[in-house]
Amino acid sequence: MSAWVLPDHIADVLPSEARHIEELRRGLLDTARGYGYELVMPPLLEHLESLLTGTGEALDLQTFKLVDQLSGRTLGLRADSTPQVARIDAHLLNREGVARLSYCGPVVHTRIDRPLASREPLQFGAEIYGHAGQEADLEVIELAQACLRGAGVKGLQLDMADVRVIDAVLAPAALTAAQEGRIHAALNAKDVAELEALSRDLPAAVRRDLGALPRLFGSVAVLDEAQRVLQPSPALHAALDGLRWLASQVQGMDVSIDLADLRGYAYYTGMRFALFAQMSDGRAGHALELARGGRYDEVGAVFGRNRPAVGFSLDLKELVAAVAPRPLVAAIRAPWGMDAGLRQAIAELRSQGHTVVCALPGHGHQVDEFHCDRELVPDPARRGAWTIQPLQTENSK
Amino acid sequence: MSAWVLPDHIADVLPSEARHIEELRRGLLDTARGYGYELVMPPLLEHLESLLTGTGEALDLQTFKLVDQLSGRTLGLRADSTPQVARIDAHLLNREGVARLSYCGPVVHTRIDRPLASREPLQFGAEIYGHAGQEADLEVIELAQACLRGAGVKGLQLDMADVRVIDAVLAPAALTAAQEGRIHAALNAKDVAELEALSRDLPAAVRRDLGALPRLFGSVAVLDEAQRVLQPSPALHAALDGLRWLASQVQGMDVSIDLADLRGYAYYTGMRFALFAQMSDGRAGHALELARGGRYDEVGAVFGRNRPAVGFSLDLKELVAAVAPRPLVAAIRAPWGMDAGLRQAIAELRSQGHTVVCALPGHGHQVDEFHCDRELVPDPARRGAWTIQPLQTENSK
Repeated sequence: MSAWVLPDHIADVLPSEARHIEELRRGLLDTARGYGYELVMPPLLEHLESLLTGTGEALDLQTFKLVDQLSGRTLGLRADSTPQVARIDAHLLNREGVARLSYCGPVVHTRIDRPLASREPLQFGAEIYGHAGQEADLEVIELAQACLRGAGVKGLQLDMADVRVIDAVLAPAALTAAQEGRIHAALNAKDVAELEALSRDLPAAVRRDLGALPRLFGSVAVLDEAQRVLQPSPALHAALDGLRWLASQVQGMDVSIDLADLRGYAYYTGMRFALFAQMSDGRAGHALELARGGRYDEVGAVFGRNRPAVGFSLDLKELVAAVAPRPLVAAIRAPWGMDAGLRQAIAELRSQGHTVVCALPGHGHQVDEFHCDRELVPDPARRGAWTIQPLQTENSK
Repeated sequence: MSAWVLPDHIADVLPSEARHIEELRRGLLDTARGYGYELVMPPLLEHLESLLTGTGEALDLQTFKLVDQLSGRTLGLRADSTPQVARIDAHLLNREGVARLSYCGPVVHTRIDRPLASREPLQFGAEIYGHAGQEADLEVIELAQACLRGAGVKGLQLDMADVRVIDAVLAPAALTAAQEGRIHAALNAKDVAELEALSRDLPAAVRRDLGALPRLFGSVAVLDEAQRVLQPSPALHAALDGLRWLASQVQGMDVSIDLADLRGYAYYTGMRFALFAQMSDGRAGHALELARGGRYDEVGAVFGRNRPAVGFSLDLKELVAAVAPRPLVAAIRAPWGMDAGLRQAIAELRSQGHTVVCALPGHGHQVDEFHCDRELVPDPARRGAWTIQPLQTENSK
């Protein structure tokens, strides 16, 4: 196999896309900063047990393992940054009050969970630690919305769920973990026949609720319907009320609800959400999930500090594919030379933010990679001075 | 061992340093862009043989290995980005003319090569492919200088060497690789006694040259001395002439030469350089190496395209420790609330680039992590409007 072949689902990012990703990255970090989120940079490698603890356990299969030659211990290559940020909140910052943190860096997955996914997403995320109230949930949703809008995403849609709904429905049945797992899987697949089979021996009220759940998706009206048809309980009430309040506060997005949605069940402890971009053809079901998040209050437990936590993340490599490319700012071509006036003119242009590409000797005839639309030439009016004129000698790409 | 303990020589980057690194990162990428260098993002993981091919071979010991479950093949976690960028130049861009490329991302090392080093440097670099002339060498040195200056490094010093000097000295002896390796090691250590022992059976001229090399370091005058004392050859002449020209063109830096310096010998094919920052106490020998680079014309050979190449790289985690911290721009504290006027006022401030931290209910008494020096309060003059006043109720840190 040739040395230049990359592993499956691993790819280089080439100049035009890399530039766009870098621009988006800056915008995301600046938006998060505008909300008071401080940047942290956790490492790529950690002891495996730190990466997989608590809510990170579901990541085991996705995490590459390797051996640390210095200690002989097993390290993991991070597949998600959230457990790391929880560790930083718990042990390094150790603040009493609210901590708002953001991060942006690559994560690596052993396998893909959907076709065309990358095994090396560029993960950006933001999290609030230390506030259990819904104000934090709302802030995180609004920040995710502001981030995607700033990136140029149009027609955002918010989808919400709450893992406490299924817990409330199943609570009276006192199931084993294995039984629960099978029911979750059937719900996730909206496999009604399987769900009926699995719930045959459960209490009648639980069976009825499980039968209703797969239909409980759609507009916010679903919350009222759930209140009507599901067995009432304080936990269910809290979950539905929370979603109702969030839906009422969110502005500028269509809100949809799917109470049988269990993605990230092992990870989240309450509300979870996803932001979708409506694709331009406007068909339902043709929306693209661009950001996901929710509440994971247990995430810091293993680090000795079980603080309320809510946050979201997105993959910049997915995001860049979903927004319109930005035009490259045209550059200035300059001749190569040691002339002091020329060097001075180039330095000044660069300090003003211009890109000045020097044509190295012998390469003047070649097409510039940067689109150069102007060139630096000796000023005919002032001896020793240089001036910019439109580049007309060739059509650069 | 506790879950929050990190592997040796692996560390988190916490907010104040992370912010500074991010600012430096943007400055470096923008400086490189001003020179016409296009950003690329190679992946963290590749097939091991792609990472270790050609000049990358010396990286074998530094590279973490892991198994790809999808293919069963051995992958490497990149320890250096240059072989990857050479692969991109050779196979993906495949341009006829000059390609200027930059990159910025983490690399990971199995071990450290000096005390206090990180095993996870944040590597930034820039490279020119396709121009064999010294103009490219000079541009890369100047770009490295501009990058470090832009980052706030004072008192830069340029140190240069050329691996062709030792090759020219040893050429008449026709040594085995093992003999050559021992001589390189003795030279690197400036171990004159060992060097004498190793060269006992070599031709007299070679022995004399080897004896002279360890003394050939210091100012640019060393080049003339080398010309005088070393056995003349076209290769030696080319190397010394090249260094002399570069030294004469570089502006605003002291230049030093060390002809016995063999660091990166396996990697470079000609001139190599390092940029040092003079430490404030001004003592010689107390300079800090911040950037390193040189010519590696063989780097793309294994990818089927052996183009001239010259470039440099630096570690942002080293750089941030060498420059003065930048002050945090103070933020504005705002109360939490759903009032439309308040939300509007906050959104406007954020869109103007301000950081506005909302005090979540119950946390108003806590110290803000962002230094807030102003607060958003209801405008006493205009009902429903909001205004900014200095924050005096507490001393935020």
